[in-house]
Amino acid sequence: MATREAASRPGGRSSRVLAAIYTAVGELVGEGAEKISFPAIAERAGVNPTTLYRRWSDVNALLEEVSVAALTRVGESVPDTGSLAGDLTEWAGAIARDITRPERVRFLRAMVAARVEIVAACLVTQARREQAAEMVRRAEARGETAPTVSQILDHVVAPLYYRVVFALPTDEGDAQRLVRDVLAMVR
Amino acid sequence: MATREAASRPGGRSSRVLAAIYTAVGELVGEGAEKISFPAIAERAGVNPTTLYRRWSDVNALLEEVSVAALTRVGESVPDTGSLAGDLTEWAGAIARDITRPERVRFLRAMVAARVEIVAACLVTQARREQAAEMVRRAEARGETAPTVSQILDHVVAPLYYRVVFALPTDEGDAQRLVRDVLAMVR
Repeated sequence: MATREAASRPGGRSSRVLAAIYTAVGELVGEGAEKISFPAIAERAGVNPTTLYRRWSDVNALLEEVSVAALTRVGESVPDTGSLAGDLTEWAGAIARDITRPERVRFLRAMVAARVEIVAACLVTQARREQAAEMVRRAEARGETAPTVSQILDHVVAPLYYRVVFALPTDEGDAQRLVRDVLAMVR
Repeated sequence: MATREAASRPGGRSSRVLAAIYTAVGELVGEGAEKISFPAIAERAGVNPTTLYRRWSDVNALLEEVSVAALTRVGESVPDTGSLAGDLTEWAGAIARDITRPERVRFLRAMVAARVEIVAACLVTQARREQAAEMVRRAEARGETAPTVSQILDHVVAPLYYRVVFALPTDEGDAQRLVRDVLAMVR
């Protein structure tokens, strides 16, 4: 996508503008703003609204882009503890800690509300899928019996996000239990 | 809650008014209305806005009440096929069929967006928890080894709702696979 490409190749001034826009979106979502519009974001970021209209097709596209960046913590490394149980426990614990932070919860819910069509949601899942695949590959290389990547997404990632989205309490203890369950499936 | 109590004790005229309000909310959410307000609902339902202000603390409280009623299909019976595998497969299949209907998807997402505080989300989970508990009780009475109710919620219900909320494709095949997985945990 042209918009995403533009966003991922920030130069000097452009990079500062983009940071201001991302921050403004984060602040507005974090404040629980009812109506997040291009003019509202532009005003908060101190940029001309035209900048936004030019770069993103609509406000949801921008919201999704910021959400994915926030929710998947782009660039985070996948744990490498020497066992799948160790890797998954550390990974799921980090997800649980991260997505239960109040500003993440608001982001997640704002993203879910953004629109019925896919895009960002898929990218969040895609990022988690790649991380899980890496851990499974290493486990299989060590000769461990591993669940499939889909099983890890369904039985570890989905229950954690489900709890956050439905405002149920969740913590690292849940993450550990979910990892034990998914490993028990292939025992 | 007083509002919920009032809503669950409908009389003649009051019952017709309530039905009109629920229908109006359903239509507006189903149409993907940007702004669902008391005045908009009142206009669509043909009732005085005061009726709404008097009965519900705010529009989210009403939205949540309608959503819970729609999403859990109050009064639906729990399958009783003679085996836990059969019960869970039928139950999960029905959930998958139901929550992937476009109007349910819109409802679910509207509900998630409604507010960070709990209430309705918990009631949805509560209804599913009670249904799962009934199937587990019967399985244990027959001497079957059953997963816990929490495991059924985490590993069957959560992945289905997760897929819908994040706009990922899902179907009864997924539901069957999830049931096989959760039963494999306790094999």
